[in-house]
Amino acid sequence: MKVIVIGATGAIGKAVTEELGKRHEVVTVGASSGQHQADFTDIAQLRSLFAKIGKVDAVVVAAGALHFAPLASFTPEQFYVGLNSKLMGQVNVALAAQEYLNDGGSITLTSGIVAEESILNGVSASMVNSAVEGFVRGAAIELPRGLRINVVSPNVVQESMDSYGPFFIGFEPIAASRAALSYARSVDGAQTGKVYKAW
Amino acid sequence: MKVIVIGATGAIGKAVTEELGKRHEVVTVGASSGQHQADFTDIAQLRSLFAKIGKVDAVVVAAGALHFAPLASFTPEQFYVGLNSKLMGQVNVALAAQEYLNDGGSITLTSGIVAEESILNGVSASMVNSAVEGFVRGAAIELPRGLRINVVSPNVVQESMDSYGPFFIGFEPIAASRAALSYARSVDGAQTGKVYKAW
Ligand SMILES: NC(=O)c1ccc[n+]([C@@H]2O[C@H](COP(=O)([O-])OP(=O)(O)OC[C@H]3O[C@@H](n4cnc5c(N)ncnc54)[C@H](OP(=O)(O)O)[C@@H]3O)[C@@H](O)[C@H]2O)c1
Ligand SMILES: NC(=O)c1ccc[n+]([C@@H]2O[C@H](COP(=O)([O-])OP(=O)(O)OC[C@H]3O[C@@H](n4cnc5c(N)ncnc54)[C@H](OP(=O)(O)O)[C@@H]3O)[C@@H](O)[C@H]2O)c1
Repeated sequence: MKVIVIGATGAIGKAVTEELGKRHEVVTVGASSGQHQADFTDIAQLRSLFAKIGKVDAVVVAAGALHFAPLASFTPEQFYVGLNSKLMGQVNVALAAQEYLNDGGSITLTSGIVAEESILNGVSASMVNSAVEGFVRGAAIELPRGLRINVVSPNVVQESMDSYGPFFIGFEPIAASRAALSYARSVDGAQTGKVYKAW
Repeated sequence: MKVIVIGATGAIGKAVTEELGKRHEVVTVGASSGQHQADFTDIAQLRSLFAKIGKVDAVVVAAGALHFAPLASFTPEQFYVGLNSKLMGQVNVALAAQEYLNDGGSITLTSGIVAEESILNGVSASMVNSAVEGFVRGAAIELPRGLRINVVSPNVVQESMDSYGPFFIGFEPIAASRAALSYARSVDGAQTGKVYKAW
């Protein structure tokens, strides 16, 4: 298979690229890194990207910014950080990818454990991760030509504990390579509309 | 108790106002209807509204626009209809209400059955309803002074079948008065972070 990984140079994307690279040809994408550059918050850039790469069998996204802050100080504008990036960036990928996927191809997005397990400062993460999962449930039943869409909900990964550790006290961080297995289940498997909980 | 209902003149809001009015003083709000007017997509209008009404014991929202269309033709802009209205309108209410609620007071928002049960043309509804539920899970653990926040997920209501019927074939519509009972459980009860499924 030929697989595009958007966010391929990130903590999770690196592990996903390694795991999928064992069996598949992986094309790596970032806003400023990877073999190709595209900012996923701009659907026009994604359309040019897919047109340039041509038909593929799978698209994976492991990218997306979120604002973390106490609820008491959260502003509407700060909620839009995650809505514009992690949510609509991934939705843009799904919308643009439809035409460039071979029959039976797949889209795999990323949410996160905070969708279900609330943490202090995590209200936007809970909201956005849940939104991504809802989008996937809704899109799965409408994709044509056997196209599939799933979402991986990773626990916090060991490789990110330097930055995320203080937010995830008591969580048992997993190796990014373990999270990557869920992306492989989505890409190499046959399920659709599924939330893979890598917890 | 003194309770503000935003969207009080709608199919669901009318039933909620009637149910809560049996025991409580209800203040009705709409963008252009009700005792007070405020557009919940503008947090400044909500802040003036709450300042004018003064301290209350509960705020309920039964309002929010969503775009329905086939996934194949959905544009990013169309996803923002629901994000800006049903999602961020309700988030705005929660943010602004915090300061005007008496200790132990509650916020009750609205999602919908499509959060979990996908329908054709409903990808934005699945996304936005799930986002509202995620927001509530995240906010519940951070609210101070015993403040509570819940969300009611109504099935399609009988009163809306003229407009929504074609989208909900095979669903068993419920009377709005039945959906209203879930809002009463949230307002009169003691739970927080809860999704009440009025199915
Ligand atoms: N790390 C965790 O423990 C964890 C746990 C659960 C969920 N998640 C979620 O997993 C996703 C990836 O997290 P991560 O920690 O692996 O991220 P990361 O290490 O910060 O890497 C982000 C990746 O996304 C790319 N990227 C950033 N902005 C982009 C844009 N606008 N357009 C296209 N690509 C962009 C980056 O490439 P450039 O630098 O070239 O832009 C990079 O490859 C996020 O959605 C995060 O919320 C992470
Ligand atoms: N009806 C159903 O079967 C059903 C099922 C599940 C979930 N829901 C959800 O329940 C909520 C209410 O639905 P509904 O069918 O009862 O709605 P509706 O009959 O269309 O009534 C909407 C209410 O919200 C108010 N409103 C509209 N825009 C507003 C704004 N920008 N700011 C403040 N208030 C505003 C309206 O007052 P004005 O006219 O004065 O603006 C009206 O009182 C929606 O979020 C909907 O998605 C409905």
